[in-house]
Amino acid sequence: MAVKKKGNISSNVINRLPAYLRQLDKLTEAGETRISSRELGEIMDLTPSQIRQDLSCFGEFGQQGYGYHVQTLRNEIAKILGMDRSYKAIILGTGKIGRAMLEHFDFSANGVTLEAAFDVRPEVVGKTFAGIPVIDAHEMQSYCEKNPIDIAVVCVSAEGAQRAATHACEAGVRAIWNFTNTMLDLPKEIVQENIFFSDSLQRLEYYLSDMLDEEAKKREHL
Amino acid sequence: MAVKKKGNISSNVINRLPAYLRQLDKLTEAGETRISSRELGEIMDLTPSQIRQDLSCFGEFGQQGYGYHVQTLRNEIAKILGMDRSYKAIILGTGKIGRAMLEHFDFSANGVTLEAAFDVRPEVVGKTFAGIPVIDAHEMQSYCEKNPIDIAVVCVSAEGAQRAATHACEAGVRAIWNFTNTMLDLPKEIVQENIFFSDSLQRLEYYLSDMLDEEAKKREHL
Repeated sequence: MAVKKKGNISSNVINRLPAYLRQLDKLTEAGETRISSRELGEIMDLTPSQIRQDLSCFGEFGQQGYGYHVQTLRNEIAKILGMDRSYKAIILGTGKIGRAMLEHFDFSANGVTLEAAFDVRPEVVGKTFAGIPVIDAHEMQSYCEKNPIDIAVVCVSAEGAQRAATHACEAGVRAIWNFTNTMLDLPKEIVQENIFFSDSLQRLEYYLSDMLDEEAKKREHL
Repeated sequence: MAVKKKGNISSNVINRLPAYLRQLDKLTEAGETRISSRELGEIMDLTPSQIRQDLSCFGEFGQQGYGYHVQTLRNEIAKILGMDRSYKAIILGTGKIGRAMLEHFDFSANGVTLEAAFDVRPEVVGKTFAGIPVIDAHEMQSYCEKNPIDIAVVCVSAEGAQRAATHACEAGVRAIWNFTNTMLDLPKEIVQENIFFSDSLQRLEYYLSDMLDEEAKKREHL
């Protein structure tokens, strides 16, 4: 059961992998050991053939008449996502979002070790939150030289975002997890993943307005 | 230039609309008044025909040989997204994520008015953050009866998430913006939009591991 990874896998499939993982974790917790593509499709709101097509991008996981072994499929997807490696991360900015991620987000469940946080404000530098030291941002470069970092979680304000991210890349960071609501201009060899809160709210508004329109139409026809 | 909205618009197109909006806002700020589908495609990392196809789902916005009028297209997309309406929102939970959204997120730029926050902890109930009062969560139902609310931003812990969201729906809320990293089981007439931090980090890991594999391969071939 070799994991095929390379090739032209559509970003839609990749985008769905974390949702598969979430569902398979839930099934494991519920004590389920196997699932058919039909059942998985129902939970995921996808057709069985979409499920089979998605998973066939990476290898042969299912067995005719048996379905998928939940734990095996879960582990293979985690491997495909690269979660079986270990990455080191730092947080830039310990404002509210930075502190929320630092204190409440489970990095280790995703194969990531949070090593340190950086800030420019003297009132937080030297403190420790959830066991993670806050270091002066001016020391980031020298810190990363001694202790190579894979991922910088950028939680500074939108104004300081580009500068902080550029600094992190210069210090050798390979990926930016961006919480600043602004698209960053980064060298193309840097992985950029954005949490755009506005995009999400706007999608919500789209479906909400659609629903309200439908209801108004129905009332007109009464 | 009537806006067509109904019909079978793929969720991929809808998912891209906020990105269009972000780019068009940036172009407006930069003083640009028109843009071709080729130029817009380059910025958005899409082909010109994808751009034309996406936007044609909603009506005719472009003109042969002229391209798109930036401000008009921006406003039409905002309208398609339902942002020209006004929605009322409440925040459930004023922990770190709740406070971060309350104090730093620009709801009004998205056509949303934040009315109140709710919490169960006596030490925050009665306080005001960024002009928004924190009300006892037990009063949510009666609050919403007097002051109908469209959107509940759920920022409680994962354990309390389902209960808080269910309460909000019972109080008449129509859409849940979910920050709890757990999928909620809601009546099907409720709009659910999730910010899954883990999904985002896992996508980052996918691309990061892919890049590291490629580099390792190149080194082997040196």
